[in-house]
Amino acid sequence: MKEFDLIAKLTKNLPMNESVVVGAGDDCAVLDLGVPDKLILFKTDAVVEGIHFTKEIAPGKIGRKALARCLSDIAAMAGKPTAALVTIALPKDFDAKFIGKIYDGLNALAEKHGVAIVGGETTTNPVILISIALLGTVPRGKQVLRSSAKVGDAIFVTGELGGSLDSKHLDFEPRLEEARWLAEHFQLHALMDLSDGLAGDLRHIINASKVGAEILKSALPVSRAAKLRARENPSAKPPALAALTDGEDFELLFTVASTDAVKLLDAWKKNFPETKLTCIGKIVAGEGILLRDKTGSHKLNAHGYVHFA
Amino acid sequence: MKEFDLIAKLTKNLPMNESVVVGAGDDCAVLDLGVPDKLILFKTDAVVEGIHFTKEIAPGKIGRKALARCLSDIAAMAGKPTAALVTIALPKDFDAKFIGKIYDGLNALAEKHGVAIVGGETTTNPVILISIALLGTVPRGKQVLRSSAKVGDAIFVTGELGGSLDSKHLDFEPRLEEARWLAEHFQLHALMDLSDGLAGDLRHIINASKVGAEILKSALPVSRAAKLRARENPSAKPPALAALTDGEDFELLFTVASTDAVKLLDAWKKNFPETKLTCIGKIVAGEGILLRDKTGSHKLNAHGYVHFA
Repeated sequence: MKEFDLIAKLTKNLPMNESVVVGAGDDCAVLDLGVPDKLILFKTDAVVEGIHFTKEIAPGKIGRKALARCLSDIAAMAGKPTAALVTIALPKDFDAKFIGKIYDGLNALAEKHGVAIVGGETTTNPVILISIALLGTVPRGKQVLRSSAKVGDAIFVTGELGGSLDSKHLDFEPRLEEARWLAEHFQLHALMDLSDGLAGDLRHIINASKVGAEILKSALPVSRAAKLRARENPSAKPPALAALTDGEDFELLFTVASTDAVKLLDAWKKNFPETKLTCIGKIVAGEGILLRDKTGSHKLNAHGYVHFA
Repeated sequence: MKEFDLIAKLTKNLPMNESVVVGAGDDCAVLDLGVPDKLILFKTDAVVEGIHFTKEIAPGKIGRKALARCLSDIAAMAGKPTAALVTIALPKDFDAKFIGKIYDGLNALAEKHGVAIVGGETTTNPVILISIALLGTVPRGKQVLRSSAKVGDAIFVTGELGGSLDSKHLDFEPRLEEARWLAEHFQLHALMDLSDGLAGDLRHIINASKVGAEILKSALPVSRAAKLRARENPSAKPPALAALTDGEDFELLFTVASTDAVKLLDAWKKNFPETKLTCIGKIVAGEGILLRDKTGSHKLNAHGYVHFA
């Protein structure tokens, strides 16, 4: 059974109560715990040695990445992170210095974003596994879900896509400030962060919103890393495919009414002159993702891949 | 470096912010997120195959235990659990049915205690690891910490101690209702749940409260499992030692002013006639734990062990 099918099965008929505004299936759970003007965001994310990092990575970067991924999920709800708990599972022979450095990297990023580290635990595991549990808040009514994209919306991504595993995945900056600014100044219809790759993640938005999407291949903001990789290695993914399918970009993917698109781009350039913002396509009726290039429109398959000419 | 020393080192100088009421070091973190009459409790707990359970255990019991441990920490703050996120890390070849059964056991316990399961994730790991992140609430001012035990206090434990790993660790009932009742009707000075063993856990209370404790050996409520084990196996721990040092009891350990002790015992018997409540000793000036038996008072060593005659 594939991971998404399994998750779909497990998340059916979960126990609920009156505090739940949004349960499993979005970037964060959203809870109403009675704060007059705010809802609570709740998220966990784990990184595992051999999957999300290798042992050769500096421990400070491992700790940083563990928290940064989770912060990116708070950004994906246009929220503000508040407090985190840190679970570190390690082989028995790991030394305290190594763990200390994991914490150093993690704490520095927490400090930067005003996140309190309020505990956690260490336990034993054959490989290094770090799980972060994170709480945040979002002004009531300002949370942006995956399920509200509308036909005609313009689709935007921040930054550049593809090739993250070359280095960006270890030092990306979660788009917290950008997401809050966007939600404050524009009516975002759908918002999420890119972790599995644009094509796969956009599918979460269109499936949740019961719409389709058309992406313009030439508009994709391909990263320098993805271009370089393709140039240096003929068997690497073509750059546009890397931008569509590489994981761990941790950029924002969102949709707004097309009438807001130009105004948004102008305001963005003034506020975030260093960070690219690109309109990559539009939400259309129907289902699935169409990729438009010079030769026409091509349907992307379920895993985000398409056969490129 | 021992685990406790490591934790002490890691939890120094953690990033803080104005939401933190209690950070690392108690059963849960306590946060003020602006709920008018409540504080937020936040806790994570992980169970790992080979440490907290074996593969031979029914998966439903593994899931149940993972959540029950975390619920016990909410009980240890006299709180009410609200919502949980579930991280399940598994070897690649595990089947969906097995994971489904882990969830079944976990969901049933969640349902029983009104806890919503609001998401989580599955990831890959050489052994089964389940990490639960749990949110709860406690009425403002009613949270009970480890650090407020006072000289002269009576020390109480619920239930019976020792031998939990024979079976109780898989089906114990977190003392949520009991803890809330206690905090509502009595001025508890210190409260925690027993996970590492009475002697070790009591040390957390007395160290945090800067006091000592005297335990009456004959008063220890030794479990039938611990007695049976000692009878059947001459090399097993003597029953009183098992009650003092066996882990995973998940009972409540608390202190109240001695003037409240009799009233509390009477009221308890009426409200929880099925559950033992025992006064096992008192808080004294100084430091460390004295164990009093017929031969006099003996100082327990740092790990909770004492040489029994």
